[in-house]
Order: sequence, then structure tokens, then C-alpha cells
Amino acid sequence: MEIVPHDSVSGEGRGPYTGLASLADAGESDISFLSNPRNARMLETTRAGVVFLPETINSEPPPGRVYLRMANPSLGLALIAERMERSLDPKPAPGVHPSAVVDPSAEVDGKAYVGPLCVIEAGARVAAGTVLTAQVYLGRESSVGEDTRMHAHAVLHRYCGLGRRCVIHSGAVIGADGFGYETVDGRHRKVPQIGRVIVGDDVEIGANSTVDRARFAQTLIGRGTKIDNLVQIGHNVTIGEHCFLCAGVGIAGSVKVGNYVVIAGQVGTAGHIEIGDFTQVGGQAGVSKSLPPKSVVTGTPATDLKQQRRLEAMVRRLPHLFKKVEALEAQLAGE
Amino acid sequence: MEIVPHDSVSGEGRGPYTGLASLADAGESDISFLSNPRNARMLETTRAGVVFLPETINSEPPPGRVYLRMANPSLGLALIAERMERSLDPKPAPGVHPSAVVDPSAEVDGKAYVGPLCVIEAGARVAAGTVLTAQVYLGRESSVGEDTRMHAHAVLHRYCGLGRRCVIHSGAVIGADGFGYETVDGRHRKVPQIGRVIVGDDVEIGANSTVDRARFAQTLIGRGTKIDNLVQIGHNVTIGEHCFLCAGVGIAGSVKVGNYVVIAGQVGTAGHIEIGDFTQVGGQAGVSKSLPPKSVVTGTPATDLKQQRRLEAMVRRLPHLFKKVEALEAQLAGE
Amino acid sequence: MEIVPHDSVSGEGRGPYTGLASLADAGESDISFLSNPRNARMLETTRAGVVFLPETINSEPPPGRVYLRMANPSLGLALIAERMERSLDPKPAPGVHPSAVVDPSAEVDGKAYVGPLCVIEAGARVAAGTVLTAQVYLGRESSVGEDTRMHAHAVLHRYCGLGRRCVIHSGAVIGADGFGYETVDGRHRKVPQIGRVIVGDDVEIGANSTVDRARFAQTLIGRGTKIDNLVQIGHNVTIGEHCFLCAGVGIAGSVKVGNYVVIAGQVGTAGHIEIGDFTQVGGQAGVSKSLPPKSVVTGTPATDLKQQRRLEAMVRRLPHLFKKVEALEAQLAGE
Repeated sequence: MEIVPHDSVSGEGRGPYTGLASLADAGESDISFLSNPRNARMLETTRAGVVFLPETINSEPPPGRVYLRMANPSLGLALIAERMERSLDPKPAPGVHPSAVVDPSAEVDGKAYVGPLCVIEAGARVAAGTVLTAQVYLGRESSVGEDTRMHAHAVLHRYCGLGRRCVIHSGAVIGADGFGYETVDGRHRKVPQIGRVIVGDDVEIGANSTVDRARFAQTLIGRGTKIDNLVQIGHNVTIGEHCFLCAGVGIAGSVKVGNYVVIAGQVGTAGHIEIGDFTQVGGQAGVSKSLPPKSVVTGTPATDLKQQRRLEAMVRRLPHLFKKVEALEAQLAGE
Repeated sequence: MEIVPHDSVSGEGRGPYTGLASLADAGESDISFLSNPRNARMLETTRAGVVFLPETINSEPPPGRVYLRMANPSLGLALIAERMERSLDPKPAPGVHPSAVVDPSAEVDGKAYVGPLCVIEAGARVAAGTVLTAQVYLGRESSVGEDTRMHAHAVLHRYCGLGRRCVIHSGAVIGADGFGYETVDGRHRKVPQIGRVIVGDDVEIGANSTVDRARFAQTLIGRGTKIDNLVQIGHNVTIGEHCFLCAGVGIAGSVKVGNYVVIAGQVGTAGHIEIGDFTQVGGQAGVSKSLPPKSVVTGTPATDLKQQRRLEAMVRRLPHLFKKVEALEAQLAGE
Repeated sequence: MEIVPHDSVSGEGRGPYTGLASLADAGESDISFLSNPRNARMLETTRAGVVFLPETINSEPPPGRVYLRMANPSLGLALIAERMERSLDPKPAPGVHPSAVVDPSAEVDGKAYVGPLCVIEAGARVAAGTVLTAQVYLGRESSVGEDTRMHAHAVLHRYCGLGRRCVIHSGAVIGADGFGYETVDGRHRKVPQIGRVIVGDDVEIGANSTVDRARFAQTLIGRGTKIDNLVQIGHNVTIGEHCFLCAGVGIAGSVKVGNYVVIAGQVGTAGHIEIGDFTQVGGQAGVSKSLPPKSVVTGTPATDLKQQRRLEAMVRRLPHLFKKVEALEAQLAGE
């Protein structure tokens, strides 16, 4: 991917550049970026030494500053940040830390890293390039795909599987029992959850999020989907590919979420519903019914966004409406 | 408990049967179940080799399939699943893994299992039949009852106690400090939380849920209550017996919840209120006041379910109402 | 701080006193307190041996009971509770437990305690008086200030820093990646989060809460701020000093919260907004826009408290309003 065609550079630099920063925070040794042309006025006040710009901005830099124009300046900076991250947090050399407890029947690839105080139970499989930072738990017969990273204190339970290039953050629990009971004579008897969780390639799961194993079969997280912190995914759920689930979301059991769905923070859903592809759900919404593809909803119960905003505006005008009705009553009574 | 009287079987099987599955997913070697007679049409399309049915369904199976009629087919399958689970996830043999760090003054029963990299502090007690899977933490003078299971990374703090046959899922934290401060001269001074948490028999607490210790005395979870993932129970709370608290619920300090209460996902409550026996609270509700027994509420602020549904319907009809009032005004102005 | 002037004591005690309890729970050997003079009737029924009272209560104790009058009885009891806590949960002697895995390049002060099965990565620094209870993780180049306590299973990621006298509860994750992606050709590409989290002095962060590292620069938690359990703080957020964030709160990315802000349970905010000093946000509110200092809001979207209560009352009167309008219509039609 060519990010910076050579002819897009203007200005003379006074390097070296040692940091990345937002336009507001940047100093002369920092590289920064402007994403939205509407914020172009920030170029007048920033002190950044190098700025990545959208191609549509054609102003010239002041002396000592460099402008680089590109299609996606935020992405451009992200690519530089990737390199910095590799030096800030270098991938550890392969090997199993002597303090890790690995069952003899587990298969750990020679190119994987198993950090201090990890536990790997019988029959678990860890593929090449994987990093288990520290204190990770892998249950019996679980499997971790190539180049996946599990951060300190992540948990993957028995028979569950992670794809390739996933990132599982600290405290995430993949494969705890689903929440299912049969009530017999006033006692809640646990329904065993003998299914598992299958996570596709390139999935990220946030810190302290929880994905429950299925009653039978599997709970599925589709490839490319990104899940934020403190999210709950119930048993037997299917999340499609390339979705975003923001922090605090709760997806109830047996829900089916399509592809490219975006669910904002603290949304909750009823169980056993379907949310169609490309749907967008606003923050804190309560989704009680299935939604067709490309829905845009918010509120509790979740309602078409424009309609919900209209209803909210009307609720704010209720005092006015009450007065109007009283005035009408008075007028009629007075006649 | 006799689940399947012999005369309730019809059809000839073509075993062996090797899996459990939903009617939609099942193949010929799977056992499945039909819970709700209204879904009886699924019997026409399923490929399941064995189906557990309600007694009210009297159709005959096609060749090669077996029907078993019983009072509670879901429970019937659960009992089979229990056996499968025992083979998928066998209870480990008693003993203390050599990597566990157990204080010499702790008392671990000879019939308990303490898995790798657990920490057991001074004076803690672990009863017979208990399983601490791995990386569990037991604080000073805590106690765990017979046949309780604490999954990997569960935490039980000092002086707190779990009953018998409990299940504590990964990342659950029982007995962190309650959230209490006195503000003196603009600084928030911590009020020590020197009480504890007491959990009754047969309680389940979900992954990454938190139950805070009391300021004095105890936070109580009554026997038979089931708590889902990412639930917060504040200090000095009492939860009654045989309740369900679904994922994401937050119970504020000093709340008293009765018996057989069902609280759906993401509900929050104010502090110092009482929620009566057999109450049902709908998802995302905000319970700001005490509720009498057998309440059925939803919404924020929590309102009687039928009334809330009626109010929601009226809000949806506000555009119509505004138009009506304008028409009335026009009519009166025109007279 | 003089809590109990000598001349404020009345009554003759029959000690020893061995516990602290609420007025309702206390027995003759317990010390208790009355905070609110309006609850003075509880003095008639309590069995407490010693009661701390507001100075405005001048009734005399019954035989065998002691009253102590003071400006802040709750604080008075808290000070006693601090002493009890020190005996219930004594600070461990300094030293590094032999089971901890400490990188040779980490600097652990000789007066710090590093408990069993902790992991301390390269270059991390642990100051004097700090307690890492057990199974704590400190990432590369992280730092922990003097007299800070990290409870079992707390996680502090690379380059992040904690101030002095902080309390980080079990399962809290400080410094996981912020949630940022660039979508290129239908794939979500991770934006590296190379910033960090900086936590001021005297901050408390609750069990299983998560504070994400910044994209660049830092996510900040101001000194004296207290954060409850299961709270999410997004990347690049600044939380001011001496705030309270109650359980289940979610603060989206790049939000700036002022000083002395109180945010009740399960509140969520949009990203990139500012919440002014001394603002109070009611439980479950959804804050979608910036709020000026001293705002008092609740509801979704967050609205001035009084106005929101008025609107809620009007929604409850909607059935009445609909009837009124129908009556007006009938009246006009009948004319």
C-alpha cells in the first residue's frame, strides 16, 4: 500500500521527529495529522513538525514544517504508529517461560511465546506466532490460531477456538457457561452448556468482555469483528463479520447479528432476535425486536433514528402541548 | 427422578447417537428436543435421530427416528447433557498442584482440588469436593463450601464465604471493597469496608461479575440464586433465594431483593430500596423506588409493565396528537 | 483531626466493645453511629453499646450505653474501622514472594511487597510501601507510586503509571488498547494505541473496571477521583480531580470530565464532549452533548434534572391528555 506518493510532500523539515501527537498537543519534533478538512484552521496554531493532510488541502506549510498529502492521513499515521508500537512493545522471542504450567498433552508450536505463569490444559493447541503475554488460561482442548495475541489474564475455556491474528485483551473470558436453567419444584437446575465458542480470524475482544459458550453447537464471532471492553455475548449468539460492538453492549442468548453491524455503547438486546447486515444501533438503545438490514435505530424500545429524534423533540414540547390543550378547554368552556 | 417412562417411547432407532443439538442443527446421530408444542412443525424438517417431546404431542415418528415423550423435554436433554459434560470436562482428581501457593495455615480438604497457580492465603478453608480450576485467589480467612467450583481467575477476598455446590465463573470478584467515602475538606476519605460477602448454597455467579463486601456485617446472596456475567452487587445488599439476575445488572448499595425475583439484563437500581418477592423487572429498567411483591415493571423510572407499554404507545402517537391539537386550534380560530 | 472532644461523652459503658455495626444490627458489644438526626428514633430500639451521634442530639443514653457526640459520626466510625481493618488485613511485610516473576531490569523498592505469582515486566518500577497482593501484572516500563495497593489480579499495562496511595481493585485493567480502527476496503485496520494511562495520587479504581490507553499522549485520571466497579474509560479521556464515577459507567473516547463531577451508575456518554466541574449526572443517563459546570442532569438524552422530572410526569399524564383532546374533538364536532 503506497501511502505517500513522493510528489505530495511540501516544505522543508527540521528533523529528527521523535513522537506522534494530535495537532493540539504536538511539538516541533512530533508528527501529526489532519483528518477532516473542516478542521483546517488547526493548521494555523499547531506546532507539529510534520503534518499528514487530506489531498484536498493545498495550503503551503510555514518555514520548518513539512506537509504530506494523502488519501487517508489518519491511516498514514497509524502505519507509522505500528512501527513505533513494535519498538515500544517488541514481540517476545518464541519459547515457553519456565514458570508456565503446560500439560504434556498440549501442543505449543515452537514459534509461539507462552509467557510467565500461563496455564495450558490438556490437549490445547497454540499455533506459530501466537503470544500469550502472562497469566493466560487455556482450557482443555482449546485452540489458538496463528499470530494471535492474548494479553495478561485473558481466559479461553475448554474446546473453544480462536482464529488467526486475533487480539484478546486482559480479563476477557471466552467460553464461560451460558446462562440457562430449568426450574423444577422451585429450584433452578443448571442446563449444562456443552457447546463452545468459535472466534474467526482478525477478531479483537476487549478487556473484561465475556463471550459465553453455547448450550450445544457454538457461539460464533465472525472474522474481522471488533469488540470493545466489558461487552457481554450470550450463549448461542452469532455475530457476523466486520462488526463493531462498543463498550458495555449486552447481546442476549441466541441473537443473530449480521455483517458490518455497528452497535454503540451500552446497547442491550432481547434474546432470539435477528439484526440485519449494515444495521447501526445508537448508544444505550434497547433492541426488543428483529431489525431488517440497514436499519438505523436508537432509543428503548429501539426505533428508527429520525422518528426517535422526532418523538424526543415532541416529549420536550409536552409542557407546551399541555398548555395549549388547557387553553382550548378554557376557550370552549368560556363560549 | 424418572424422566422417561418406558411406554412413552415410539419409533425404531438407528443408533448410535453421538451428539446433542437443536432441532434445526441436528443430524441423524443427534438427540434433540421440542420444548414448546407450538413449534411442532419443526418435527417435519428436523434430521434428528431422537427427539424428546412434550406428552401432548402424539404424532408418530418417521422410519428410523425415535420419539420420547416426557413432562419436560428440555430438562430431559439437560440430564443427558450433564453426563456428556462430565466426560468432556471430567472433575480433576483431588490434590494440590505443586505450582499453587498455599499458606501453611490454610485448611484444604484432602478431597478438594487446587489447580495450578492458585493462591490461598492464611487461614482460608477449602472443603471436600471443591475444585479451584487454576489461578484462583482465596483471601485470608475466606472459606469455600463443599463441591463448589471456582473457575480460572475467580477471586474470593478475605473473610468472605461461599456455600456448597456454588459455581463461580472466571474473573468474578467476590468481596472487593464497597464504594463508600466521607468527603472532608474537599477530599474523599475512604470509609473502610470491614464486612464481608456471604454466598448461600447452589449459587452461580457469572464471569467478571463483582459482589462488594459490606461496610459492616455482610452482603448476602441467598441460596439457589443465579447471577449472570458482568453484574455488579453493591455493598450491604441482600439478594434473596432463587433469584435470577441477568447480565449487566447493577444493584446499588443496601438494596434488599426478595426471593424468586427475576431481573433482566442491564437493569439498574437506586440504593436503599426493597424489591419484593416474585418481582419481575424488564431489561434496562431503572428501579428508583421500592417495589411490592409480585411487581412486574419496566422502563426508567420503572413502571408497571402494562402502563409502561401504554405510555410508550402514546409517545409513539404524539405526532398524531400534536396534529389533532393544531387542528382544534385552527377550527376554533376559524369560528 | 480531633474527632471526639472529651466533654462530648455521656453515659457509662459496659465494655469491651468488639464490633462495629449499623444501629439496626448492633448488639451490646458493638459500636454504632447515627448520621442523620431525622433517624433519631432508631436510638430507642438499638441495642448498640456505644453510639456516635451528631452534636445536635442531646438526649441522654439509657443505663449501660455510651453516647459520643461529634461533627461527623460516620467519619468517626470510619476512623475506628480503619484501625480494625489494619488488624483484619495487616499490611504484609516488605519483600518479593519467591513465586513472583520479576524481570531483572525492573526496580522494586526494598520497602514494597510483591505477592505470590505476580509478574513484573522489564523496566517496571514499584515504589516503597506499595502492595501487589497476588497474581498482579505490571507491564513493561510501567510504574506504581508509593503506598499504592493493587489487589489480586489487577493489571497495569506497559508504560502506564499509577500515583501514590492509589487502590486498584481485583480484575481492573489499566492500559488496554483504546478502540480505534480505520476501515480500508471493508476491513477494519487497527489504529495502534501507543499512548498510555496516567493515574493521579489517591485514586481508587474498582473491580473489573477498564481504563484504555491513549492513541497518542495519555488517558488521565485526576488525583482523588474514585471509580467504582465495571466502569469503562475510553482512550484519550481526561477525568478531573475528586470525581465519583459509580458502577457501570461508560465514558467514551476523548471526553473531558472536570473536577468534582459525580456520575451515577450505568451512565453513558458520547465521545469528544466536555462535562463541566461540579456536574452531577443521574443514574443511567445518556450524555450526548457537552455540559456546562454545575449541571444537574438525568435521562437519555441527558436533560436538566427538574425539566426531566417534569417531562416524565407529563408522559405519565399522557393518557389523560389523549382523553382531553378526544373530549374537545367530540365537543367541537357536536356543536
